[in-house]
Amino acid sequence: MSIIPQRIVERLKELRATLDEPRVRQRLTEGSGEPNRPALRSPRRVTAASIEALWQKIRAVAPAGDEQQRLLADPDTLASAECYGANIENMIGTVKVPVGVAGPVRINGLNAAGDFVIPLATSEAALVASYARGADIASRAGGIAAVLLTEGVLRSPGFKFANVMEAGLFLEWVIDASAELKVAAEATTRHGKLCAIEPMMDNEVVFLLCRYTTGDASGQNMVTIATEALCRHIETHCPVRPRHWFIEANYSGDKKSTYLALTSGRGRKVTASVTLPRALVEKYLHVSVERFLDYSRMASLGAMLSGQIGAQGHFANGLAAFYIATGQDAACVSESAIGFTRVEDRDGDLFISVTLPNILVGSVGGGTGLPSQAAALHLLGLQGPGKAAALAEVVAALCLCGEISIIGALAAGEFTQAHRKLARER
Amino acid sequence: MSIIPQRIVERLKELRATLDEPRVRQRLTEGSGEPNRPALRSPRRVTAASIEALWQKIRAVAPAGDEQQRLLADPDTLASAECYGANIENMIGTVKVPVGVAGPVRINGLNAAGDFVIPLATSEAALVASYARGADIASRAGGIAAVLLTEGVLRSPGFKFANVMEAGLFLEWVIDASAELKVAAEATTRHGKLCAIEPMMDNEVVFLLCRYTTGDASGQNMVTIATEALCRHIETHCPVRPRHWFIEANYSGDKKSTYLALTSGRGRKVTASVTLPRALVEKYLHVSVERFLDYSRMASLGAMLSGQIGAQGHFANGLAAFYIATGQDAACVSESAIGFTRVEDRDGDLFISVTLPNILVGSVGGGTGLPSQAAALHLLGLQGPGKAAALAEVVAALCLCGEISIIGALAAGEFTQAHRKLARER
Amino acid sequence: MSIIPQRIVERLKELRATLDEPRVRQRLTEGSGEPNRPALRSPRRVTAASIEALWQKIRAVAPAGDEQQRLLADPDTLASAECYGANIENMIGTVKVPVGVAGPVRINGLNAAGDFVIPLATSEAALVASYARGADIASRAGGIAAVLLTEGVLRSPGFKFANVMEAGLFLEWVIDASAELKVAAEATTRHGKLCAIEPMMDNEVVFLLCRYTTGDASGQNMVTIATEALCRHIETHCPVRPRHWFIEANYSGDKKSTYLALTSGRGRKVTASVTLPRALVEKYLHVSVERFLDYSRMASLGAMLSGQIGAQGHFANGLAAFYIATGQDAACVSESAIGFTRVEDRDGDLFISVTLPNILVGSVGGGTGLPSQAAALHLLGLQGPGKAAALAEVVAALCLCGEISIIGALAAGEFTQAHRKLARER
Amino acid sequence: MSIIPQRIVERLKELRATLDEPRVRQRLTEGSGEPNRPALRSPRRVTAASIEALWQKIRAVAPAGDEQQRLLADPDTLASAECYGANIENMIGTVKVPVGVAGPVRINGLNAAGDFVIPLATSEAALVASYARGADIASRAGGIAAVLLTEGVLRSPGFKFANVMEAGLFLEWVIDASAELKVAAEATTRHGKLCAIEPMMDNEVVFLLCRYTTGDASGQNMVTIATEALCRHIETHCPVRPRHWFIEANYSGDKKSTYLALTSGRGRKVTASVTLPRALVEKYLHVSVERFLDYSRMASLGAMLSGQIGAQGHFANGLAAFYIATGQDAACVSESAIGFTRVEDRDGDLFISVTLPNILVGSVGGGTGLPSQAAALHLLGLQGPGKAAALAEVVAALCLCGEISIIGALAAGEFTQAHRKLARER
Repeated sequence: MSIIPQRIVERLKELRATLDEPRVRQRLTEGSGEPNRPALRSPRRVTAASIEALWQKIRAVAPAGDEQQRLLADPDTLASAECYGANIENMIGTVKVPVGVAGPVRINGLNAAGDFVIPLATSEAALVASYARGADIASRAGGIAAVLLTEGVLRSPGFKFANVMEAGLFLEWVIDASAELKVAAEATTRHGKLCAIEPMMDNEVVFLLCRYTTGDASGQNMVTIATEALCRHIETHCPVRPRHWFIEANYSGDKKSTYLALTSGRGRKVTASVTLPRALVEKYLHVSVERFLDYSRMASLGAMLSGQIGAQGHFANGLAAFYIATGQDAACVSESAIGFTRVEDRDGDLFISVTLPNILVGSVGGGTGLPSQAAALHLLGLQGPGKAAALAEVVAALCLCGEISIIGALAAGEFTQAHRKLARER
Repeated sequence: MSIIPQRIVERLKELRATLDEPRVRQRLTEGSGEPNRPALRSPRRVTAASIEALWQKIRAVAPAGDEQQRLLADPDTLASAECYGANIENMIGTVKVPVGVAGPVRINGLNAAGDFVIPLATSEAALVASYARGADIASRAGGIAAVLLTEGVLRSPGFKFANVMEAGLFLEWVIDASAELKVAAEATTRHGKLCAIEPMMDNEVVFLLCRYTTGDASGQNMVTIATEALCRHIETHCPVRPRHWFIEANYSGDKKSTYLALTSGRGRKVTASVTLPRALVEKYLHVSVERFLDYSRMASLGAMLSGQIGAQGHFANGLAAFYIATGQDAACVSESAIGFTRVEDRDGDLFISVTLPNILVGSVGGGTGLPSQAAALHLLGLQGPGKAAALAEVVAALCLCGEISIIGALAAGEFTQAHRKLARER
Repeated sequence: MSIIPQRIVERLKELRATLDEPRVRQRLTEGSGEPNRPALRSPRRVTAASIEALWQKIRAVAPAGDEQQRLLADPDTLASAECYGANIENMIGTVKVPVGVAGPVRINGLNAAGDFVIPLATSEAALVASYARGADIASRAGGIAAVLLTEGVLRSPGFKFANVMEAGLFLEWVIDASAELKVAAEATTRHGKLCAIEPMMDNEVVFLLCRYTTGDASGQNMVTIATEALCRHIETHCPVRPRHWFIEANYSGDKKSTYLALTSGRGRKVTASVTLPRALVEKYLHVSVERFLDYSRMASLGAMLSGQIGAQGHFANGLAAFYIATGQDAACVSESAIGFTRVEDRDGDLFISVTLPNILVGSVGGGTGLPSQAAALHLLGLQGPGKAAALAEVVAALCLCGEISIIGALAAGEFTQAHRKLARER
Repeated sequence: MSIIPQRIVERLKELRATLDEPRVRQRLTEGSGEPNRPALRSPRRVTAASIEALWQKIRAVAPAGDEQQRLLADPDTLASAECYGANIENMIGTVKVPVGVAGPVRINGLNAAGDFVIPLATSEAALVASYARGADIASRAGGIAAVLLTEGVLRSPGFKFANVMEAGLFLEWVIDASAELKVAAEATTRHGKLCAIEPMMDNEVVFLLCRYTTGDASGQNMVTIATEALCRHIETHCPVRPRHWFIEANYSGDKKSTYLALTSGRGRKVTASVTLPRALVEKYLHVSVERFLDYSRMASLGAMLSGQIGAQGHFANGLAAFYIATGQDAACVSESAIGFTRVEDRDGDLFISVTLPNILVGSVGGGTGLPSQAAALHLLGLQGPGKAAALAEVVAALCLCGEISIIGALAAGEFTQAHRKLARER
């Protein structure tokens, strides 16, 4: 009986044969020489011809044939190839992600008001059905209150000085120069506004957390370009010279799940809530309000024990499906999928709320203008300028629908069955 | 001068007009009555006709017309509609996400060995170019060592008892019955193996963290079904009765970024590394090894200050693009995008490694069998049974390429320029 | 071979006999009836007689005799009994914690400048020796630069409303009333200043993070009383009525280690650093600069893998010993013992810095006026008004000494030996 | 109106004058030369004479006089000077921390059963009164159920290899050699048992988390010495050579608050609970069960928003006071003060539980044998061999008392008043 955990022991036994093979050892430790196959590269301008040309090269080096080419580089994609040029490099086609709808869901938002049909792109069975179920019950209860609370996309340049004294003098200068820095940053953008610079010192290192509103765009590129200008202004005018500086020093939480994001927000902070009458809960979720609360209490403990950032069920499912369908940056799911779901008894009825501090969505820019993504946004009536605030509220409402449904299913003991039934053909 | 942060004050001023409007107040606080539009619903079997029928209903309630329908429900999608039936509900078409390639990248893995062309689906300019750049330099250095370390997908049923005494007696029973529980769980699956049950007590609440290997599938449904069977076995045979129990009590970290995942792993834990000769770093990344290390030191501090789980740059970008392209569960980016990137001077050359404890990928199941997704996997030669271990190593190698490129760009001061140039048409 | 971790199985086996005993079961599940021994209570005014009287009662109910009474209620303590009355209830004597000194350590602070002999109270062998060693080498290197960066003790009242709309209106009112709130809070204190109110909303719940400077006191009571006044002002004047509110809703991090503290600071944020010439490192720490850095790299990974808040070695040791010796609130070690230790090669020499965002120290108030504690503070020349800023810098310098010594010992392989030698008599 | 937070601006303005002073600048950036005062040093053997001799040296370099010497080096301390020799270096006396008592509290533990008078050392007014109030009400409710769940003190040596392949081969060897390693480690101790080695890999770095039971000692030194032997055995026998290794690589969480500790435990994991009848709550806490629960809900949100590890109120207060009174390692409060307080309605009554995964206490070793500390332990009847398990349960019960009282006070709106009244003389 080993004192080493059994699963580690078994895994190592599995590996032993492989690790003992000389060819594998050599490969792992010495590499295998420079490749004779040059990196694939395509011209900047995407056309049907550039796609075809790239496939010729790929087929020489990878196990791809006519069928793969046809499925990715289908005629429709080739016909609209030029649309994609600003969004991708080395393009070889498109992947088709199935889209389902949830709704119409009644949203009573500060910015989004009305009934919305929400497009969701996913290949996971049961996901759309679950969100649709939540949408249905929330609508029957009179709809979802949703409020965009704050916004502010972050960039965090970092500056390193010879010592803490220099760092302090730098900060003095920054404070005196803050108005100029704002001008420098905002000169690069029509829509972005630098609304705060929040310094963070660790001895001789200074981060400047720059917080921007970004109009109707998600705004990640916008804030990068603006912050570059801010840093160049510092470089040109500040008499205190850093040893080195970087435009983004990994403090902003860009594409990462962080505690900073939970407390300070990144992107748009949105909240949504609904009170579900007891009768609706029992009829449509097949569970009592009490049991719903029982689940929620245990789940809150589970979340904290696991070291979750915030406490929620599966924001990521709705966010990923929505971001993909509407041309948002799907990698931002990593930072958006944090926050809180809270549940309470309200005189026998069920109050449920979600708060997401980091929704990164735009109604313009990014992939929102690509053909099918624009079509999906259009379904919501939220494509183009002036719609980002409403869009953010729709996302929060969507996440609320998902939480209602999954907690309901888990509390009612129907979670497994739902997945088994809907993924039935596998 | 208010003692309340300026950005909050300004935001509230913006909101004031809206909040003061009676119509908005009423909507937010009282809801707006049950909707007269019933929830959209489609039959289980997806066909061109079911899609067409659903569009008819949608067009009655949402701002959608011919063009939107054509873009989402294009002829190719309609022709292959039945393929999607097991992966989505209420299907209205597909969204086309552009796919680019990085590679061929030389991987010297335990399981993945050779030159791989990696498909990436994204609408974010510069992403593919960045990963391709990292892939090129890593290949020139002789390729990437990659090792699948451990695996184990988690489910965490939770049981609540009358008191800690009962909880203790329950645990006693579980330990005696562990062999039976393993049999019960594994009876539901050909490929899944229950390799550990790790109990966690908090007074009268007991979580059983169930850890499974899942063969070549990502395995989230598989472990749900197996754990349901395990719980039903407990329900039937255990004399100690819980007050209530739930199949998943939010401790496993499913679809969430958690510390548990960082230390215990969920899905597949993979590591990849390469040593880049100094000359390559200078030539292709336009930066010295020293400056690369300077960046990495500051970024490590930034990560910790932000409360990141692990410390890395942008795993999420590569993961999201790869998961979407190859039919993986894109929502799992939320839990996969954690881990460590480490950088060191090795006698003047640059050692760089990534470790990701939670890659959730399969070469079978989920969306991997959908037409264009299967084609993308085929490009890698990693579709179908027996390929999941290699697939996981490819994912780690990909993330390594992305880290090389982004740190290089940030350290060289080229980050902004790269984004500006490649997103040029917007 | 069980799939349950071996150590859990063994532990449960150990427990089995006990759990199966009916007497134990009954005790654990049913309690054991109301006790016939009333709670011990002492008058507010502490005197030798009150102590003696309490001992009489204790000796009737607890295994205590003459010897215990003499050791805790020694003549010196009895003679000065009245000194303790404002600091303790139910007083039975004093515990004598041995005090050692480290120093004189040269500190080149913004506020603390000169050579300081630092008193440390601990019963852990090797602790004082280790800090003294670090103090010696840092002094030989020309002394420690130390800077008090910011200060701000937090209280976080929480308010719950009927819905998010009411919460928003409340916040509007707070912003308009912020000047009055500042007046109300500051009316309760001569030294405290309310420097910021930072609101945090989660749907219908609003926390107001109130940040105070507290003069030369640590200030925890001061901010409680001021915040109570602030809340009462709200209660009296704000037309938007909360469902309920609490003066501290567990968001401020009081007596807890939190991420909020790491990024926002609580108490005083202080940084200290020194550059140790290579020759000093080798001579006194018996280790090369390179190996010191090797350790530090691995320790940084260890810290992040463990989910530490910040990354440091053993701030808690120095803090606890210093807080106890000087009459600070020792429970605050829990929140103060976070932050960063960073190490770098500076042209072959060793730069090392510490940053602690949450030092809670005062040169007045709390236990600083108790006889022996005041004597310890006096040794530093930092007792009484006007000394808190210097005191905070001394604490940071002390922590730096401890980090130098422990990293040196661990890197040199001398850690175990040092402990074995100094705890020799056990 | 600056975009930089007002409090930062004001703080920098305060600093400006100082930072601009040349003398300060020089001091901060250049140091101030090697000190002419040598480090204070005392012989190993502590006697009244050695203390006197050290005071002579101190008085030459620090603002200390007769009074300070008398207060720290009082006759009683001098008379018992030799008792302290194994616990401190450079001893100059003792600091007298006032001790109050809470209880008798009825504990119905697995190991601790009966009525306990608990000594608490603190200089914070209201602390003892608060714990005593909780103890009283818990006892009236029939007493506190308490269970020592698991134990295991951690050390985490770290090993760095040339590459991941070597790291894998090392781990293979460790697994084969685990029985020998256990023998080597346990050969150094009569009481310590190595119950698990849990490996953690990050590419070429391997941590071995070594988990020990430590008999009746807290055990931190014991596990260091045992792990040193384990590492030396590896060094002598393992054919795979690390580049370097360290006995403790900062992964174990020693003296730090970590997530690892929350999920894996360090030291002793203990839980305690009680159900308070509604009438008792109302009578003694002046609050309804409902309002107690209202508080607890908001406090749980506050805890999570602040990034607390676990969710509790003020474990640190009770722990610090108890650790100091009974000669435990007070620095361990930093790691012990995490865990969960949970509250529930049980048919109208109030169930409340605490779980602390990291209590580090011993009934032997450390400071437990010092005169007044031993007397305090004696009061509990828990000094000496065979008492550590009961001691741990008493600590958990104590923390429960504290949580009952503070939540009660906060919920009843009496928190401020209690502090104002009891700290009245300041």
